[in-house]
Amino acid sequence: MTHCFTLLNFPLQCGVILPEAQLIYQTYGELNSDRTNVILYPTSYGAQHTDLEWLIRPDRILDPTRWFIIIPNMFGNGLSSSPSNSTYILAKDGFWFSHLDNIHAQEKLLREVFGIEHLALVYGWSMGAQQAYHWGALYSDRVEKIIALCGTARTTDHNKIFLMSLRSALTADPTWTGTRFDGIPERGFKTFARIYASFAASQEFYREGLYYSLGYTSLEDYLYRFWEASYRKRDPHNLLSMIDTWLNCDVSNNPIYQGNYQKALASIKAKTLVMPATTDLYFTPEDCQNEAKMIPNAEYLPITSIWGHRAGNPYQNHPDETFIREAVRDFLLR
Amino acid sequence: MTHCFTLLNFPLQCGVILPEAQLIYQTYGELNSDRTNVILYPTSYGAQHTDLEWLIRPDRILDPTRWFIIIPNMFGNGLSSSPSNSTYILAKDGFWFSHLDNIHAQEKLLREVFGIEHLALVYGWSMGAQQAYHWGALYSDRVEKIIALCGTARTTDHNKIFLMSLRSALTADPTWTGTRFDGIPERGFKTFARIYASFAASQEFYREGLYYSLGYTSLEDYLYRFWEASYRKRDPHNLLSMIDTWLNCDVSNNPIYQGNYQKALASIKAKTLVMPATTDLYFTPEDCQNEAKMIPNAEYLPITSIWGHRAGNPYQNHPDETFIREAVRDFLLR
Repeated sequence: MTHCFTLLNFPLQCGVILPEAQLIYQTYGELNSDRTNVILYPTSYGAQHTDLEWLIRPDRILDPTRWFIIIPNMFGNGLSSSPSNSTYILAKDGFWFSHLDNIHAQEKLLREVFGIEHLALVYGWSMGAQQAYHWGALYSDRVEKIIALCGTARTTDHNKIFLMSLRSALTADPTWTGTRFDGIPERGFKTFARIYASFAASQEFYREGLYYSLGYTSLEDYLYRFWEASYRKRDPHNLLSMIDTWLNCDVSNNPIYQGNYQKALASIKAKTLVMPATTDLYFTPEDCQNEAKMIPNAEYLPITSIWGHRAGNPYQNHPDETFIREAVRDFLLR
Repeated sequence: MTHCFTLLNFPLQCGVILPEAQLIYQTYGELNSDRTNVILYPTSYGAQHTDLEWLIRPDRILDPTRWFIIIPNMFGNGLSSSPSNSTYILAKDGFWFSHLDNIHAQEKLLREVFGIEHLALVYGWSMGAQQAYHWGALYSDRVEKIIALCGTARTTDHNKIFLMSLRSALTADPTWTGTRFDGIPERGFKTFARIYASFAASQEFYREGLYYSLGYTSLEDYLYRFWEASYRKRDPHNLLSMIDTWLNCDVSNNPIYQGNYQKALASIKAKTLVMPATTDLYFTPEDCQNEAKMIPNAEYLPITSIWGHRAGNPYQNHPDETFIREAVRDFLLR
């Protein structure tokens, strides 16, 4: 059973005030009496909490017998307020969700529902890592540790081109009216999935044919049954919404830092573990390392893997899961 | 003035016989009396000979006062037989040009028009490199040297996904009827250009903002005025045709080698200079190096550059042009 936290008249960074914003979340484990065992685990692109909770198990990466873990669903992901569940959002021109919006809603949820003002850890992969960095900069006194896997605090130009190609792929479909989809964008999904597949795994992943060991019978089979099927499950309006959040990701785009990126990163007090994947094509290790240098208490620990971006969410990927599990365990003990 | 070589009843690898195939070519410099100074310089994706001849100058990469240089336009590029200039080709289902077709037509041109049966060098970048490898394997006794920049003899799986995304991008457009475009695919071109821009230059290229030094005022300006404008100049049917040639590129897919890739590469007798770019995202240095190991007389010399794939066609890129010019000069002296 999931939980719903409602925020009335919730002001968004884009200028819109949502009459009723909903934040859907799930918790795992038990909050201890002094509220010192809280891990926040924000969601990644296209994902809902049910896609990410696999790693919450005593023998996996986050142990719910020791920690109280909360997954807040990102705005736009189809569970929390999203184009698919709000005509208001969809109809609005110039509408977008920012991570500032996500973090503000999460902060209110934690404080009002659980009385939590201190996070032992924010753990995030990809767009989850973006949110972790935002937490560290926006609430620098409340976050003890951050583990940021395969993500940056500000979206790079190259990454933006990838996102623009995805956005353009969906909206090139004949069903796109200019403001919404009038039907299922069959052609758009096909392009979208192939762009994603070419960027989110590495060249080496395909050279080694790793997908065969996962039960796929050919490259086409893998592209269709894994990549295309995964995104076809999602409302295309939501896919656009989350792209816009990602495109606009900038830890310093807020009243506190006013565009001063270095200052925002320098303000992070949390012990921060920066874990890119060595073969990530859009959150490159170089970009992650550059940010690690700007964060006072950061440690740079790349995942040596041929899984590309997906190394940071190592479902069905035991070597990378083991590496991350051990890194997380050691980091939490410090 | 360009030249046209006509091939009557020209059989293609896909099974179609073209009643009249046309190979448009241009020459530079003079053929010497013993025909020992011939350089063949096949075209790359989307390019016509006028796009590539900039590097043919005494002070640039190929010196026309010393060499007789021929640029044969690849089938599908809009000058030689292409969907845009032949209703026959466009209407034909299951139609595609192979590099075997390109090389067969080029061989006939060289022999029948010029009496050339010996090539001092085949020089090619990208799809031009693919053709150079085909020459080396299909006419191993006739090619003395090969310089293959940023290309492989067989298209890798990862590269195929990039190509499938490009193909899907164009054919997602509302103007696509299933067999042809009924109008200009405005949406398709937009996606196509952004996919290309994200893959054909490197992450570092964008991180350093190199396009500003080329006169572009913003990322969007660069994407539109350089990438999108470059492809909008081309007939979208031709863009699909050349993608199909690239997708099907395999130096061993012919009656001589019958799919034996290693044997095809091992048969190349030419001294071969394999020059990938260190940051090429689809013709990766690893893939090029793997092929170099299978070619008996190959030397591996990567171009250290942040220009990505485009390092191998260094227009407006003086450091890489200098590196290639000097490598070519040394290689031709041996």
